[in-house]
Formats: sequence, C-alpha cells, structure tokens
Amino acid sequence: MAGSSIGKLFRLTTFGESHGEAIGGIIEGLPSNFEINLDQIQLELDRRAPGQSEIVTQRKEPDTLKILSGLYDGKTTGAPLGFIIENVNQKSQDYNKLQSNFRPSHADFTYFKKYGIRDPRGGGRSSARETACRVVAGAIAKQYLKHFGITFSTFVCQIGNIALSEWRDFTVEEIESTPVRCPNTDDANKMIEFIQTIKEQGDTVGGIVFSKVNGVPAGLGEPVFEKLNAELAKAIFSINAVKGLEFGSGFEGAKMLGSQQNDLFNSDGTTRSNNSGGIQGGISNGMPIELKVAFKPVSSIKKEQEILSDQGELISNQIEGRHDPCVVPRAVPVVESMVAIVVFDQLLQQKVTNFSDFNV
Amino acid sequence: MAGSSIGKLFRLTTFGESHGEAIGGIIEGLPSNFEINLDQIQLELDRRAPGQSEIVTQRKEPDTLKILSGLYDGKTTGAPLGFIIENVNQKSQDYNKLQSNFRPSHADFTYFKKYGIRDPRGGGRSSARETACRVVAGAIAKQYLKHFGITFSTFVCQIGNIALSEWRDFTVEEIESTPVRCPNTDDANKMIEFIQTIKEQGDTVGGIVFSKVNGVPAGLGEPVFEKLNAELAKAIFSINAVKGLEFGSGFEGAKMLGSQQNDLFNSDGTTRSNNSGGIQGGISNGMPIELKVAFKPVSSIKKEQEILSDQGELISNQIEGRHDPCVVPRAVPVVESMVAIVVFDQLLQQKVTNFSDFNV
Amino acid sequence: MAGSSIGKLFRLTTFGESHGEAIGGIIEGLPSNFEINLDQIQLELDRRAPGQSEIVTQRKEPDTLKILSGLYDGKTTGAPLGFIIENVNQKSQDYNKLQSNFRPSHADFTYFKKYGIRDPRGGGRSSARETACRVVAGAIAKQYLKHFGITFSTFVCQIGNIALSEWRDFTVEEIESTPVRCPNTDDANKMIEFIQTIKEQGDTVGGIVFSKVNGVPAGLGEPVFEKLNAELAKAIFSINAVKGLEFGSGFEGAKMLGSQQNDLFNSDGTTRSNNSGGIQGGISNGMPIELKVAFKPVSSIKKEQEILSDQGELISNQIEGRHDPCVVPRAVPVVESMVAIVVFDQLLQQKVTNFSDFNV
Amino acid sequence: MAGSSIGKLFRLTTFGESHGEAIGGIIEGLPSNFEINLDQIQLELDRRAPGQSEIVTQRKEPDTLKILSGLYDGKTTGAPLGFIIENVNQKSQDYNKLQSNFRPSHADFTYFKKYGIRDPRGGGRSSARETACRVVAGAIAKQYLKHFGITFSTFVCQIGNIALSEWRDFTVEEIESTPVRCPNTDDANKMIEFIQTIKEQGDTVGGIVFSKVNGVPAGLGEPVFEKLNAELAKAIFSINAVKGLEFGSGFEGAKMLGSQQNDLFNSDGTTRSNNSGGIQGGISNGMPIELKVAFKPVSSIKKEQEILSDQGELISNQIEGRHDPCVVPRAVPVVESMVAIVVFDQLLQQKVTNFSDFNV
Repeated sequence: MAGSSIGKLFRLTTFGESHGEAIGGIIEGLPSNFEINLDQIQLELDRRAPGQSEIVTQRKEPDTLKILSGLYDGKTTGAPLGFIIENVNQKSQDYNKLQSNFRPSHADFTYFKKYGIRDPRGGGRSSARETACRVVAGAIAKQYLKHFGITFSTFVCQIGNIALSEWRDFTVEEIESTPVRCPNTDDANKMIEFIQTIKEQGDTVGGIVFSKVNGVPAGLGEPVFEKLNAELAKAIFSINAVKGLEFGSGFEGAKMLGSQQNDLFNSDGTTRSNNSGGIQGGISNGMPIELKVAFKPVSSIKKEQEILSDQGELISNQIEGRHDPCVVPRAVPVVESMVAIVVFDQLLQQKVTNFSDFNV
Repeated sequence: MAGSSIGKLFRLTTFGESHGEAIGGIIEGLPSNFEINLDQIQLELDRRAPGQSEIVTQRKEPDTLKILSGLYDGKTTGAPLGFIIENVNQKSQDYNKLQSNFRPSHADFTYFKKYGIRDPRGGGRSSARETACRVVAGAIAKQYLKHFGITFSTFVCQIGNIALSEWRDFTVEEIESTPVRCPNTDDANKMIEFIQTIKEQGDTVGGIVFSKVNGVPAGLGEPVFEKLNAELAKAIFSINAVKGLEFGSGFEGAKMLGSQQNDLFNSDGTTRSNNSGGIQGGISNGMPIELKVAFKPVSSIKKEQEILSDQGELISNQIEGRHDPCVVPRAVPVVESMVAIVVFDQLLQQKVTNFSDFNV
Repeated sequence: MAGSSIGKLFRLTTFGESHGEAIGGIIEGLPSNFEINLDQIQLELDRRAPGQSEIVTQRKEPDTLKILSGLYDGKTTGAPLGFIIENVNQKSQDYNKLQSNFRPSHADFTYFKKYGIRDPRGGGRSSARETACRVVAGAIAKQYLKHFGITFSTFVCQIGNIALSEWRDFTVEEIESTPVRCPNTDDANKMIEFIQTIKEQGDTVGGIVFSKVNGVPAGLGEPVFEKLNAELAKAIFSINAVKGLEFGSGFEGAKMLGSQQNDLFNSDGTTRSNNSGGIQGGISNGMPIELKVAFKPVSSIKKEQEILSDQGELISNQIEGRHDPCVVPRAVPVVESMVAIVVFDQLLQQKVTNFSDFNV
Repeated sequence: MAGSSIGKLFRLTTFGESHGEAIGGIIEGLPSNFEINLDQIQLELDRRAPGQSEIVTQRKEPDTLKILSGLYDGKTTGAPLGFIIENVNQKSQDYNKLQSNFRPSHADFTYFKKYGIRDPRGGGRSSARETACRVVAGAIAKQYLKHFGITFSTFVCQIGNIALSEWRDFTVEEIESTPVRCPNTDDANKMIEFIQTIKEQGDTVGGIVFSKVNGVPAGLGEPVFEKLNAELAKAIFSINAVKGLEFGSGFEGAKMLGSQQNDLFNSDGTTRSNNSGGIQGGISNGMPIELKVAFKPVSSIKKEQEILSDQGELISNQIEGRHDPCVVPRAVPVVESMVAIVVFDQLLQQKVTNFSDFNV
C-alpha cells in the first residue's frame, strides 16, 4: 500500500487500522517558527469523533492527540510532526464472525482481492477512523491559512431527499448549532428526524456536504495536471464513501450556454456570479472556492441482507457493531480538512512561482 | 509551473503552448518489448483533432505525431518515448487585441495573477490543445490494457438539456457513427441540431461524457490517498472545463438508503447492481468502472459580452478566433485517455503488491 | 523539512528528535502476505544501539521497537507499518548551556540558519538517533531480500590510519566477533586500542565502512537519473557524518587505463574482476555490489575548543554529554540498512519493467 | 525506465538516444518573468560537445538547442520549457556488428538484462550524449543562481596519475585556457600529452573533476533523507562513469581526529578551515561547497580485448566508432550543471521553510 501520503510541500503520511493499538501520522513541510494551537486541533478532532450525538455511531473514542515531535515551546521547529491517536475502544470481537464473509459495497472484498490476506478487525485500514489523522493535518493547515486571511464555511446541505432551503453565508456557530451540521434549523430538524427514523429501521442514508473557502488569493493551482480543482478532487475522492463532486455550477453547468455560464467581471477583477466556483483554468481567481461533495450511505446496515461467504455462498445476515446511520455530519470536518491541506500546499507552491517576488 | 506530469510508474510529462512551434511530451515507464501500433495512436489523435466535423472548431490542425525516441523496430525499448506534435496553424494575429484584456471565465486572468506575465497567443499553456499529448499517452496505455482484456466505451450522454434516452452497452462503431459521439442516432441528431443553433448565435454549450471500463480486475487502487477513484478524479479534473464528476450512483446516491445503494453479491463475486461504479473502498471490485464527467460550455463566445481591460475598464467585446461551439464530442477521447493512463498506472502498481505473486 | 522520506515503491518516512518523547516512522510498500521476524529487527536495532560496548557512547537506550499497525498474525497486510521507539534516556539538562552557542562542524549552526529557531535538546532532528528508524526499515528489507537470495556483508575496514590488512569474504559471525566490527582480529584490536586512546584524550576519530551485497540479479537500477549507484549514493550520503563514497575501483579508477579498469567477461556473463562494483551504466550486472563509505570523526569532542556564541563571541569550551569517540562501528548496520532499502525498492521497480515478464 | 526526471521544484525530464532523431527534455519550475540568455546556454553546450579539441572524440555534433515552448519575448512564462537537440551525425553502421555482442564494462550487457531487448545504436539511452540535456538545464539554473550571487568554479584536477599541483581560486578563463580544463598550464600540458599517448595506444584514461560553489547562503538542504550532500550525490552519481565522490576532507577525513577535522568558527560565522566542504548536518553553512568526482576511464577502447557474444562465446575484438580517449574535460560542464540543478532546486525549497520569511 503505497498511497498513504498526500501533498507536495505540506505533506501528510498516515498509518493505522481502526482496531489496532493506535493510528497516527507524520506531517512534513510545516514552516518553522509558527505557534500551533493544540486545543484547536483537539476541537476539530472532537467534531469528527464518534459518539458526539445521537445521530452518529455510539462507539465512544476520545480521539486524544499525542504529538511526539516537531514542536519546541509550542512552536514548529521545521522538523516533521509525528503524532498518534490511541484506539481505546477496540471491540474486535464484534467482527470475528465476519472473518470469512464479505459485506455488500464494503471494502473487505476488494482488500482481499488486492492483498490476498485479510485483517478482519473493523475493516482494518479501510475504516473511516483513518480520517482522524486528516483532521489533525487539516486543523494545522487552517491555522496557517488563517494568517493569510483564508477561512472556511463547510456544512451539510442535503440528507437523503431533504435539501437545505436557504443559501447564504453561514457562521461556524450556525453550522455547529445542530448535531447534523446543517445551518438552517428547520431543515436540520427534518434531517435529524429522518436519520433517527432510518436508524430505527437499521438502515443508513447518504447526503451532500458543501464547502466554501473565503479569502483565497488569485493565482493558486499548478497547471496542467496539478490544477487546483484536480488536486482538490483527488483529496476529496480519497475520503471514504464519496461518489460525486462539483465545483461551482457543476453538473448544472453542463446544461448551460456560455453566455449564461460565463462569470462577468466587475472592474476590480471580482466576478458578478461564481459559476466557476472560484477556479478558472485550474487556478484560483480570487472568488470563494465552492464545492459540493456527495456521500453514499454507509454500507454497514443492521437490516437483513445477503452477504457472500468465502466459500461462495450467499448468506442472509445482519451486520453487528456500532455503525453510523449517517456519516455526513461527521464528514464535515474531514471535507474541510482535505480542502485546507490542498489549499495550503498550493499556497506554499505559489511562493516559488514568480521571479519578481524573490526580491533578489 | 510544476504540474506537467501525471502518473507514478506509467508517467506522462507534457510541454507546449497552442501557438508555439510544437507541443509534445515524454512518456516514461513503458514496459519494454511491447509492440506499439502507431496508426492506432494517430487515429485517436484524429478523434480529438479540430476541424473533424461541422460542430467543432474549423481550425485545421493535422496533429501529426512524431516520435523521437524509445522505440526500436516498432517495439518499446524501456527508454522514455519523446514525441512532438507541430503547430502548423498558429493564427496568433487573432489574439493580438486580447493582449491586454481578460475574457470572462477564461484562464487569462488567473494565469496573469499567477505568473505576473502573459503569453497572449491563444491562451498559451491553458489551451485545450495540450490535451493532444494526453491522447498519445492514453492511446498507448489502451494498447497495453487491451492485452489484459481491459476495454473502453466512452460517449456523450448529454448536451445542454438533451440527454441520452437509452442506456445499454454501445460499441465503438455506434459511438463513432455520429460527429457528436452520442451512440443513439435520434438523440445525436437533436444534439447536433442544437449545437448548430447555438453556434449560429455565437454561443457555446456544455455537456456530459460517460465512460465505462470493462474487464478491470478486482484489486486496482492504492488506499488511502491514492484510491483508484481519487487518482481518476485528479486525472479527470485536470481536463479543461470539467466541473463535475460522479462514480456509479454519484449525486443520486446521496439520496439513497444503504439498503437501496448496496450492491448485493452474486455467488461468483460479481454484483447485481453497480451503484459503486466498480470501485469500493478505493479499489476496483471487478465490475465495470463507470463515471460521468460534466463539462461547462466553452468560455470563448462570439456573442457580445463585457471583458476586462488591464486598466480595469469593462469593454463590450466579441471574441474572435475559431472556437468550438461545443467541446464535448472532442473531449470523449481525452476522458478515455485520462482514465486509461490511471488504470494502467494502477495495474503496474498492483504487480508489486502481493508477495505471494512473486514466485520466489 | 520536506525530506523525511526515502524510496519510491518501498518507502520509509521518519519523525522524531533525540530528546523528544519518541522517534518513529511509517513504512509503505510492504508486499502483503509476508511473515516478518520481529526478533531479527530488534537484533539489528541492538547492533546500532548506544551503550553496546566500551568504544561507543555510554548512553543507555534500549531502543525497543513498538509496531502499531500493518501486521496481522505476524504477516504484512499490505497496510503501512507504523512504529515508534521511545526515548527513555533524555538527558536534556546536559544541553542547556549550549542553547545559545554553536559547536564547530555540528549541525546546530546550519539548522538555526535554515529554520530561524532552535531546539537545543541534543541536536534535535540532526541527531544520529534518527538512524534507528532506518535500521527498522533496513532489517525488514533484508528479510524480503533474503528470499531472493540477496545477502549482505558489511564491516569496518579502516579506523583513523589503521586499515584492514586482508580482503576476503567475511561471515557475519566474523564481523560481529569484535565490538569494532572489523573482521580481522589483529586489525580490530589495534583499532579498539586506538579508539580507547583518543577517547581518553577527549577526542574522536573517523573511519571507513565497506559493504558488499551478494546475489543481486543483473538488471536493477533505473537509468538515467535513478541509476542504482545514484540512488545508493543519495541513501548513503543521507547518513550523518558521511563525507566520501566509492563504488568498485572508486578514486583509484580515476588513475587507471581503460584496458586495466575494464571487467572482462567470463563466458557465463560474470566478470573476472569487479572494478565496476557490480554496477555498469547505472544497472546491476549480477556481480556483487561493492562500496566504501568514509565517515568523518564525530564533531562533539570533550577536548577544549572554541565555540561560537549567538552574540558572535568565540568561547573556549568542552562539550559535555555522552558522545561516541568513534561512530563507525555503530554505522555498520545503518549503512547496510540504507543499501538494503534501495536494493529492495529497485527490485520491486524491476517487476514492472519488461512486458515479457507479465504472462498476459 | 522511470528514472528520467531530477529535481522537486526545479525539475528536468529527458528523453532520447544517441543515434535516434533527437534528444531533448522538459524543464519545469522555472520562476516566471526571468530573462533567459540563450547564447549562454549554447556556450555551455559547446563546452560539452564532441569534436571541440584533439583530446576528445572527433565525432562532430553541433548540438544546436531548439526551444519549443515556455518563453515569450525572451522571458520565462512559468510554462514548462520543452527543447530538442537534433542528432545530425548518427553513424549507426559502426555499431551493427555489435548488435549481438557485449562489450566489457559497458552498459549494453546490463540494459539487455534489464529490458530483454536491445537497441544497438550507439549504446542507446546509456550514451553520454544524454548529458547535453543536463547542460541545458544546468545553464539555466546557473543564470538564476547568478542573481543570488552564487557562482561556480569547476575544473579537472587529475588525469590518470597526473594531479593538479597548485590549489587556489581559479577563474573561468584560466579553466578554459586549455582543452583539458585544468587551470595550471604546466599540469594541463602533461595531462594533454598523456591523453594523446594513450589515445595512440587505443586506450582510455580516467580522472577527477573538482567543483566549488561560491556564495551559497547558509540554510540550503532538507534533512533527513534529502540533505544537500545526499541530493548532490544522487545527481553526481547519475553521470556516466562516476565511481567516487568526496565532500570537503572526504576519505582523508576518515583518518582524522575530531580536533583536526572540526572547522573552527570565526566570529562572523564563517570557518577557518573547510573540511566540511560547505555542508554540515546536510545543510549548507555559508562556506563554499567543495566536491571531488572520480571518473573511471571510458570502457570503449580500440585496443584488442575479449568481448562476449550473445551465444556465450568470448571473442577477441577492437571496438570501432569515435570514442573519447578521456571524457573528463567534457565532464566539467556536466558536473557543474548537476550541481547547479540541485542547488537551485534547494534554494527554491528554502523559500517555503521559515514562516517568519512570509511577511503575512
């Protein structure tokens, strides 16, 4: 498995399985002399953690961050930051009976086909628990980005068929005011109610996360193959259960005429519309970056369904364990983290782009 | 501009501007001793070339491939393949008046913001002409993949509001039977008529390309950050004008319940549905890979619109030059090429994954 | 600090400072289904560990390996292997007085110039303690390589002016029979005596490590820039205190004529001499790889010398702390590990080189 | 063959065989808005070119650079620079008889073992002709570096047993004043005479190149695995025929005591000696970088020697073609180019290292 790193100048490498001793990672490329707020990282981890509300998995994991290197007196030294998050609540016994069976739309079949061996404990490396490490790196990236005036607004805009009914700028407080992380209270209540209903049925449901990045300067992104949207797309599709992504007008834009889609300029270089989602020719144009991420429902359902045994038998089964009826609210900080990692990496790359900026 | 390479083991690096002397590239990681069919590459280039039909740009470029290294007696030697495609039809004069102006939703504003300098000839590096190099690499990847039983079916499934009305497996002949590359003749005719209408109005229109990869073995893709869908997403969003991407059930999947979305197994490990689009946990599951790509309309329209001068003035303007009213039909071989590049790269990576395969 | 990774398909990423809580790393690209011998890794760590004999530093560190992921039932799962080695014996107080001073030929001056901040505890990231992580990865690489018939013979061939007096193949037992890891007992005794003498004087001394890799198949190495010798050179010069490297005839070869230097063939493709050191055109030729590594003396001496204060004053000083009088014996497993990491990485890369090997 | 790229932020990728139509490359990461002196590049190419004097190969190749992209009005646009150098003098017929034979210490045996196929024309990709592309990138890197006050002094300090007899700073004019590129005229004359003697005997001879980089600021280099010396070592050993490398005191340092080797500070942070060769802890310390590179003699000799047929027969043979009796004088600009590529890449990386430099 070679794919455990993301980023070129700001880079995260992770390890760890959901039911091993610990997960963790190494973050490289942290510019030195920067004061890191550790409480802020823990706060972001708590937003992702299981057991935070009734509409997510009831598995309790404190997800306590332990940093082993890279800081001195609270500041980055330039050395890589190594960290671990211990797994305190491994209920491997829940998984024993699955050892020789494959669950529909789950990664256990594909991992077995790839590696010819199976670690049956909780999905092993394919567990979404691994995303906690992304939140650590994302929280740090956001702290740097804040100094450049770059801020985030990420929230749930759809659960099942229930869509957000108003679109405006929302504050983090509005987003965090409900456990479903939808900033309109009425919509949020409908979503929560729906999640509780399908949870009682032993079912799961998907949804859509919207993310907006404000304050991104024009000029970020590396054409041709490392366009800003290309790198964001890779980062977003690396999150478990993502099946769709749109920037700006997205699939609607495919229906539009050029005269409708084009974002006309204001005289200051901003644009009157933002169908481009803040990116043109793979490079940020100074408008907010806007993207939508579609999550499929969690594949582990308690409803009875047929699973496949390693003997090629189809067996009626209910999956046990403590799974999320809807993972979308917990995905909000993960989406935000992946976007932050990419934007910060590109911001660093931009610093070596124009000779006129070098002051030689 | 650091982002001119794609791929890890099979790798393409490109150079060239639309109105320079030539574009070209270097392809590394071609397994040796493989016979390359050069005519087949040229055929794919012709599918992408301008001037191929009335519904695309009338600019004529033969796009003749010239290979400078890496082959001996028609076979790969293991050395990198260097190639150029000369630009025989540079009408730079069309662009002179744009030198100091920025077109809406075009890359000229963002390139200037990034680099602080402007090559005004035809959009410079941001021109879609660069995708010809991708088609060369993609055509070669497809020749290798064919030996592994991996084949492609890629076509236009929507132009503006006109969507493909039947879904089944289509042959390459059916796809190529109309200039719009939509395999249903009735739908294709409506699309062609619509493109001609908006072309007369000096406008442009977007659309959707669908790609299906058959014969992909289970096991391709590198979790965590280099999932098969993540690498495909990066490759797809690196194509000009792409604004949306879906695998399998895509955005529809966000509305579904787990009990609806889950792809139940057959006893042979295939699945009864393919909502996963052939990828689970970032790894291929042996079902066809299915994806949809949304293209926004070309931003260069002949209709009058306001453009921004570098003095900050808004000027009413009609963009001259010979642009595509709809780039989607020509995007078909480009999408297919990017998918082929990624799948072949992952197939090579899979060869070093399982110690049991090593026969030591 | 971006440079914490080495390897392309088999890859090690490390973190940690000598006087932090722990050092550790992540190893990616371990082919799955391979049984790892943990005792063997610990044995290699013990060969590098401080306090192992009287001629090395008396600092005691057990260097106990703790693996956190990537194994199931003792076998590799294909997931990355995360590990930590706790620092149990951090005597940071020894370093306090150095906080604002720079030691001659030490990394503290250059780190400060690079990062603008200083972690004064034991040299921070520049400490050779970091090489323990390399030994973990190297020990694992060697276990894989053994299955391909590739074995190592690495030893000390010079300390100060005392050079090894006989050259033949030596067994690991002969090498390990003396604490200086020189396989000729008489030479070893002279070296040990010399080290003890200069240790009493508060001085340090350099030396040369020779490494021979047997059983390497012809064909490893990636021309042009990733030649086998180029990758080995990068790996070797990344070890602290290395100032010189030779393959085969090395600097002597610069004096030779082609008719003397050329390694004439035997009819089976082996060669009568090995002036090439097993590598021709950057690719292994099937003969043993042979290289020599020159280590300068440790810069931390107890003898009085002038150091530089951060106020620009030159102060007479004796460096305290428990430093090695000669680091070369402990460098033997480190050199061997770096060679093993590179050779295994190249061996994996070779598996995707020749289409004829693919059995399609 | 994956290894055709070098550099992270400033990156060269090359293609081409000695006897194909052209060689060439792509240079990425050129900071925009920089005026390139094309004549200066050609001048450096001429220093490497064959046929430049009587002591090198008499093969005539003008090595004319043709740049295809990346420049506008003589300035870098930020786009990759694609270039080709045509092979005008391919005498493939000289090589026909070698098609099925392997020459001692030449790359044809190892290439065949690696790729299972053989391009017999002039050694194919293994020919030193490929280094012309390195000189293009190196010449450009040197133009950027000059703006930062970084300059080079590289020359031949040994041919066979004839060593440079005086060591001081030499000007480029002194170095270029003799065809052997040794800056002391008496030594140079001895070297030239010796080369002519062995040339008449049909033999070849090796030598040593010394390179000194002045003006390198303290702080360049990325610990741990991407130390400045490690990256330089990889770059240097990627040059054909290199068998040894030393920084500063090199192999002599292995004999020294710490009290002799340590470079004591002056009060301004410079050092009184430069045994470190300008690099401590893998990071430049502000003193000149100094390195020595050992080249083995060219393996293609006209003297009779045994070669190996692909039938396993040893045949007495004289290699025809026009080979260098001593490649070391032509290697001077190649060594300098590789050093320049690495130093410039690290200088760019340093720009994203320290948050205090960001002026946010």
